[in-house]
Amino acid sequence: MLTDEQKSFFKKPNFGHLATLNADGSPHVSPVWIDVDDEHILINTAEGRKKLRNVRRDPRVAMEVHEQENPYSILSLNGEVVAITADGADEHIDELSLRYLGKEKYPFAQADEERIILKIRPTKVIAP
Amino acid sequence: MLTDEQKSFFKKPNFGHLATLNADGSPHVSPVWIDVDDEHILINTAEGRKKLRNVRRDPRVAMEVHEQENPYSILSLNGEVVAITADGADEHIDELSLRYLGKEKYPFAQADEERIILKIRPTKVIAP
Repeated sequence: MLTDEQKSFFKKPNFGHLATLNADGSPHVSPVWIDVDDEHILINTAEGRKKLRNVRRDPRVAMEVHEQENPYSILSLNGEVVAITADGADEHIDELSLRYLGKEKYPFAQADEERIILKIRPTKVIAP
Repeated sequence: MLTDEQKSFFKKPNFGHLATLNADGSPHVSPVWIDVDDEHILINTAEGRKKLRNVRRDPRVAMEVHEQENPYSILSLNGEVVAITADGADEHIDELSLRYLGKEKYPFAQADEERIILKIRPTKVIAP
């Protein structure tokens, strides 16, 4: 679904801006670290976060990503959360920590935090 | 509603990420230049843009702003578009052009483009 060029946005330490839907249907937007596998965009979040409650209720999301060094190089997409899993999420947040912060161990973990991976299937991509 | 410190996010050339609602209720997010007056957050857009169609249908929005030099300094808010006006919008986009691009005249105007200002009343602010 994503071209290699589009995937490259998600393999660099760029920030994503993830829009989800609140219970009353209003939008919510939050900054996220981003990653990608063969088919999905991957977001690492934690139990208790609003975006997680939101996508459990309604899986429709939108996301915008711009290259950190060029805020006018922008990719945006609509998508759907097709999987929500704790499998591999602790290892994954450490990988992201290394990519974004240069730290092998994610330094912001809270006590008893349960990390969760959201897998997003893009349904529409607007990109360079 | 916004403190002076919060307003400072909107007076620097930071980027906003504005979430609106599509006709089917799904979220849309787009990057925006941002500004603020005494009471409202100001977004300059143009006739024909999706976010404008969206807020005419449903005025509920969410926005996230981070400082360009520190992506971990983040303000996010929920709000409502309380006014949509062409008054002053051409002058306003030139002011933003100067702030963001250092160019006195907005260089990306398309032929017959009608600029529009969205005035957003914040209803909830989460900020440093």
